[in-house]
Amino acid sequence: MVKLTDEMKEDFAKMKIFPFATASKGGEPNVIPIGMCDLQEDGETIWIADNYFNKTRNNLDENPRGAIYVWGPEIKGCYQIKGDIEIKTEGADYEKMYKMVKSKGDRFPAKALAVLKITDVYECKPGTGTKPGQKLL
Amino acid sequence: MVKLTDEMKEDFAKMKIFPFATASKGGEPNVIPIGMCDLQEDGETIWIADNYFNKTRNNLDENPRGAIYVWGPEIKGCYQIKGDIEIKTEGADYEKMYKMVKSKGDRFPAKALAVLKITDVYECKPGTGTKPGQKLL
Repeated sequence: MVKLTDEMKEDFAKMKIFPFATASKGGEPNVIPIGMCDLQEDGETIWIADNYFNKTRNNLDENPRGAIYVWGPEIKGCYQIKGDIEIKTEGADYEKMYKMVKSKGDRFPAKALAVLKITDVYECKPGTGTKPGQKLL
Repeated sequence: MVKLTDEMKEDFAKMKIFPFATASKGGEPNVIPIGMCDLQEDGETIWIADNYFNKTRNNLDENPRGAIYVWGPEIKGCYQIKGDIEIKTEGADYEKMYKMVKSKGDRFPAKALAVLKITDVYECKPGTGTKPGQKLL
């Protein structure tokens, strides 16, 4: 597993909406905006709430890999994060996520928790000295 | 091919940065922010300038499918657009893109033109009457 640096954590904390990409086993890409995406204290685990996943959930069931990026206004760097994903629909972690989501609004179904374990971080900004696409962690 | 509706075109025109997802043939997802992404007049073709593609270009060479979404502040809807992609590194379309990119800044390499022909459009907003993930076009 890979831990984000302090600088990356600061950038992550400023993000409100993340683009979340998955793919089918056959390689059909998918990307959706997600709001409930929280870096855990260990710096290497991200919890993503599944409220409305459709193709994303199908993809994760057959091909448990995901990619997001951290970038936007007021954010210094631009990083792509990839990881292995486990879907949880019961247990202590799921219950914790469920309560957190419901506290934000009862309308959110909180169907599942996608736990992403970070495996790779890539540069995605030009002109930094490292090439866009280059592996950072 | 699929043509965007007038409402989708209006939303598209307001976007500055698009999340652009691809996948390797084996299903490894990738997502990057792209700036030079222009809907053509036919409403069914999108030109994407490749300035810094790395994994994205490798993915497109082996698996020519891509997905973007249209969403953000001041944008009414939220749509995911998928399509077939052809890479061009010569010819009239490439030359046109090259000039356009260089007019924005000589630092941009304008390595290739990715021509995306829209094949599918999906809802990606909850609470609209259509389900998130539902096919619209």
